[in-house]
Amino acid sequence: MDLTDFLKSSAKQVDEALDRFLPPAETEPSVLHEAMRYCVFSGGKKLRPILCLAAAEACGGDLTKALPAACSVELIHAYSLVHDDLPCMDDDDLRRGRPTCHKVYGEGIAVLCGDALLTAAFRSLADTAATQRWKTSDFLIDLADASGSKQLIGGQVLDLQSEGKAIDHSQLVAIHRAKTAALLTCSVRLGAMTADATAEALAQLTKFGQALGLAFQIIDDILDLTQSTEVLGKTAGKDIKSNKATYPALLGLDGARAEAEKITQHALNALQPFGTQAHYLRALTEQLLQRHA
Amino acid sequence: MDLTDFLKSSAKQVDEALDRFLPPAETEPSVLHEAMRYCVFSGGKKLRPILCLAAAEACGGDLTKALPAACSVELIHAYSLVHDDLPCMDDDDLRRGRPTCHKVYGEGIAVLCGDALLTAAFRSLADTAATQRWKTSDFLIDLADASGSKQLIGGQVLDLQSEGKAIDHSQLVAIHRAKTAALLTCSVRLGAMTADATAEALAQLTKFGQALGLAFQIIDDILDLTQSTEVLGKTAGKDIKSNKATYPALLGLDGARAEAEKITQHALNALQPFGTQAHYLRALTEQLLQRHA
Repeated sequence: MDLTDFLKSSAKQVDEALDRFLPPAETEPSVLHEAMRYCVFSGGKKLRPILCLAAAEACGGDLTKALPAACSVELIHAYSLVHDDLPCMDDDDLRRGRPTCHKVYGEGIAVLCGDALLTAAFRSLADTAATQRWKTSDFLIDLADASGSKQLIGGQVLDLQSEGKAIDHSQLVAIHRAKTAALLTCSVRLGAMTADATAEALAQLTKFGQALGLAFQIIDDILDLTQSTEVLGKTAGKDIKSNKATYPALLGLDGARAEAEKITQHALNALQPFGTQAHYLRALTEQLLQRHA
Repeated sequence: MDLTDFLKSSAKQVDEALDRFLPPAETEPSVLHEAMRYCVFSGGKKLRPILCLAAAEACGGDLTKALPAACSVELIHAYSLVHDDLPCMDDDDLRRGRPTCHKVYGEGIAVLCGDALLTAAFRSLADTAATQRWKTSDFLIDLADASGSKQLIGGQVLDLQSEGKAIDHSQLVAIHRAKTAALLTCSVRLGAMTADATAEALAQLTKFGQALGLAFQIIDDILDLTQSTEVLGKTAGKDIKSNKATYPALLGLDGARAEAEKITQHALNALQPFGTQAHYLRALTEQLLQRHA
């Protein structure tokens, strides 16, 4: 299977698993379940669950066993977007080419929808089978720490606090590590753990995920600056408007692109011990560097 | 130990466990960790964690082993209050006699603080040791379901939707079951599970928790109507002001009190198989019926 087919087939498997897992839209309270589905089935890239599956593959595992964890990381991502888009946070009207959750369902339901997606992420993790090396509590610690106050949520706090302030390169890296790289790394780690990966393999994949996450965010910063709202499906040019520190602002466009290429190479280097088994992870990494949306 | 001493000693153990578990206020991002501690250490009754410990005791368990789960249910409760108090939800300025989280830290941080407390609840659950009968995934399913879209969060949605509408007795019971009884029941169940309770014991405690939760909410409705804001530490008379369906509104004050007494008796009946081992659960139940705040 080439990368395009793997991406399609993985996204389909994840969508089907999410559809089986989430309560039907007609289950009471139906407005909440409808909102949850609106946010989850909105044509996103499904990057995190695909990374989870690709990491399981790289460790010789069975993709079906990685599906509950793949759903978990996508649900965490979906909840974080719903809450980040709220008027009291980034105040965004557009996400994936459609009105944001609070625009459609109101702020109260949007807050509760995010809460329900977050809770559902942990419920899905309970369906992950323990392996010889990794227990349910290990999965739980990984997901809770990556999503918690020092990583995903902490990153959003730092991001809110940095708006309009001059921050340096190391502070920018700290924000991106927490806000983006932690959950990407967790996605890869969880997939590998469902495949009973060794601690050594996990350590390599952690390096991979951290580099990939940073490179991903630099590209995001570049696209926010160079692409249109139509292409991105979310409001473009927001970083400049909100006077946000970004890689292009710190290093210039060329500097930022060079940095993304350098860090992508770090990510690829971390995959070396996996040889050809990591071909999807490798191809995906190269594709993310070249993406235009 | 009499009930007063048990309550004091349990609340102290839970507070100490939460203090060890939560990141120190000076850990970055400090505003978030400070907000989390502001909401958790606010002089609440700690009813849910105490129920968790008392249920472990009733099943012959070691209270120390029940502490991580006790922290989990308190953290879920704390997060739900923070989000329910938001302007886009119940819009409340006062909680436990102090300004609500968003009044002190702003709405953005309050949303993120609730998210972080919710995530921390699941992190704490990972520290619960599996028993012969119950695995980590069993604990996880219980907590995620009780806090999820069909129970705790679903109850808040139904509550929001019912404001200003005429609803009947059965709809009111459905809201209270979801919004209050589910997490109280989960608190008791998790405590019992850490003590390796049998499925039969869990079934009895589930009946107990559901009855207790309903009785607790009826008393809450009565107190909202009959007590002052000073005594309650939260805005009194809100239910009438927001034209909310309550037990006193449906059954009258005397009718509501009689209903609370009847349901409290159901709760006590469910404890019979535990004999004298359930003395704290029993005493606590009787005290909750008599409470004035």
